[in-house]
Amino acid sequence: MNADEIKSKIRNISNFPKPGIEFKDITTLLKDKEAFKSAIDLMAKELSQEKIDYVVAIESRGYLLGAPLAYKLGAGLVLVRKPGKLPAAVERIEYDLEYGTDVLEIHKDSIEEGKKVLVIDDLLATGGTVKAAIDLVKKVGGDVIGAAFLIELEALGGKKKIPEGTKLYSLFKYE
Amino acid sequence: MNADEIKSKIRNISNFPKPGIEFKDITTLLKDKEAFKSAIDLMAKELSQEKIDYVVAIESRGYLLGAPLAYKLGAGLVLVRKPGKLPAAVERIEYDLEYGTDVLEIHKDSIEEGKKVLVIDDLLATGGTVKAAIDLVKKVGGDVIGAAFLIELEALGGKKKIPEGTKLYSLFKYE
Repeated sequence: MNADEIKSKIRNISNFPKPGIEFKDITTLLKDKEAFKSAIDLMAKELSQEKIDYVVAIESRGYLLGAPLAYKLGAGLVLVRKPGKLPAAVERIEYDLEYGTDVLEIHKDSIEEGKKVLVIDDLLATGGTVKAAIDLVKKVGGDVIGAAFLIELEALGGKKKIPEGTKLYSLFKYE
Repeated sequence: MNADEIKSKIRNISNFPKPGIEFKDITTLLKDKEAFKSAIDLMAKELSQEKIDYVVAIESRGYLLGAPLAYKLGAGLVLVRKPGKLPAAVERIEYDLEYGTDVLEIHKDSIEEGKKVLVIDDLLATGGTVKAAIDLVKKVGGDVIGAAFLIELEALGGKKKIPEGTKLYSLFKYE
């Protein structure tokens, strides 16, 4: 299945989760076995030049892409989770949302010093979450070589939050 | 990597999330690229005789196994989520926990009538969550042929909650 056919499986839901938001629903892509397989294969192909030790997946929709990509690329899978979910010693980061703040955590012993890391989430919007995840990976010693997304909402400018030297991979772009 | 080697990568954390609980931490398995790949391949091998249209993964640790398994098996991936996360029309189910109740949701249009479904989560403990997920899949018309877990805690008796006619697959058992 080619990229345009895969993209056509993403469903638009107006006014979710708040009025005025056009939500990109990927569940209709995931449930289509050909679209799902092709999306993972396309992302893996774009990343095939990179040497990746760990795929770091952001809870929870990041898991849907990060887990099969780690499997396909032959990388380890590391989790960035919401507070209180990881059972061993963690590093934590607090970051600003539109209203209020949010917290993410990673296991302190999850990534050995200097290992090459790809951070993955389903969607790049304003970039606050991925920026926090990248900072967390650096705190525990990882070398973030890239950040990958199924979808990038270009108008929200999240790209600017990706640090220099970290490559941005986004499979589908919306203006 | 063989099953015993993979199992040895699961870490035990005492008194998480509550005193007296011996928590099985799978993050140490996931981050080991060989153990992660081998675990998915072993689960896929056990399921290779089944015809599976959809893998239904339970939020959020179920995604970590369900997404790569769906990819490997060539099945569609459908999500059972916590309330308020799915953007289109949902079926919901409320079920009892040790203290209080919990709610799970599935998209009404996620599974066509009579399609063969495998439900997946990381852990089978008392079985309340997987029973709720199976009931949800039936509500939307799916035919649940099996339930698969990375870990089964046998002493908690969750197996009894799996309906007759639904096969139970668990890769690693603990007494």
